[in-house]
Amino acid sequence: MDRLQRQIEFVAGIDRLKSVYRQSFLLDGSRSENDVEHSWHIAMMAVLLSEYADERVDLSRVVKMLLIHDIVEIDAGDVFVYDAEANKGKEGREKKAADRLFNILPPDQAAEMRALWDEYEERRTPEAKFAMAMDRLQPMLQNYFTQGKSWRAHGVTARQVLSVNARIQEGSEALWEYAQRIVSESVEKGYIKP
Amino acid sequence: MDRLQRQIEFVAGIDRLKSVYRQSFLLDGSRSENDVEHSWHIAMMAVLLSEYADERVDLSRVVKMLLIHDIVEIDAGDVFVYDAEANKGKEGREKKAADRLFNILPPDQAAEMRALWDEYEERRTPEAKFAMAMDRLQPMLQNYFTQGKSWRAHGVTARQVLSVNARIQEGSEALWEYAQRIVSESVEKGYIKP
Ligand SMILES: [Ca+2]
Repeated sequence: MDRLQRQIEFVAGIDRLKSVYRQSFLLDGSRSENDVEHSWHIAMMAVLLSEYADERVDLSRVVKMLLIHDIVEIDAGDVFVYDAEANKGKEGREKKAADRLFNILPPDQAAEMRALWDEYEERRTPEAKFAMAMDRLQPMLQNYFTQGKSWRAHGVTARQVLSVNARIQEGSEALWEYAQRIVSESVEKGYIKP
Repeated sequence: MDRLQRQIEFVAGIDRLKSVYRQSFLLDGSRSENDVEHSWHIAMMAVLLSEYADERVDLSRVVKMLLIHDIVEIDAGDVFVYDAEANKGKEGREKKAADRLFNILPPDQAAEMRALWDEYEERRTPEAKFAMAMDRLQPMLQNYFTQGKSWRAHGVTARQVLSVNARIQEGSEALWEYAQRIVSESVEKGYIKP
């Protein structure tokens, strides 16, 4: 198959990510959002909030990472971050998905995308840490602006939110401070239990 | 209002783009897609297909442009590219939307985003031309892979598709050749009338 054919096959294949739904809601509460909407939103956040990264980041790499970071969920599905049971075996399922999906691309691009995805998952580089912070902050915002709609639906507590999302701090002290502030406010306003 | 507050207000405000629906369908035909899904998809296409740009492009700027290019439709709505009547006055409505929306951001970022959007709309730089090519090619792919679902729903002809999307050529000869090929195939397969 020629190079462009493989690229187009991948472009067509990732359309399915538009049908992988998450636990977060749109801000108008009308429906849950999907992985593609989440990915676009956090890529936009990275563009607008990179000044708060604690280490200097190559924004272009952060954005690419965020655009592709959930593609494995086409095969592996979205797992709610507060569901410990469902998170078992997630890593293996996602690696298998990465093996299949990225290899639809021509070898050089498959390697590039896989390296970006691995880097994101390993959370060691400044780019991966900041990207992860965006991934964690966005659902907190979706919750805050919907009066804790998804938190309440799952009986999640403020303590759990702070524990699961503490990784924001690895990417940005300022945004972690902000995240803690909206959790406190959410407790005060009754959006979430302490 | 402090800087981060304005940035978060913008991040929250653009959530509404997830509810602006287009005429294109998901590849499984289950529903029409929204502006955010379209924007993510063409940003991914730019990442994967930039080798076909006729002029050297700064991919990072192309991706930013594509992520934001439809934000004005939060106020102005999506206008079907084949609907000449609805396209009247579109430019003015979108400029007004840009004035309101980007100015939610702190002044320096409002200016940066507005400049990117203006550049995209003016289609003069290599980045804007290539970005436009992605914006035009993606709905053609959504149509091709759904047996012309949206073309058929609106009685669009191959001649119209080729005329409206000829701008792809300004960004990439190779992708324009590919686009013409899928239109010919679509005629042969009966997805669209000549
Ligand atoms: Ca996820």
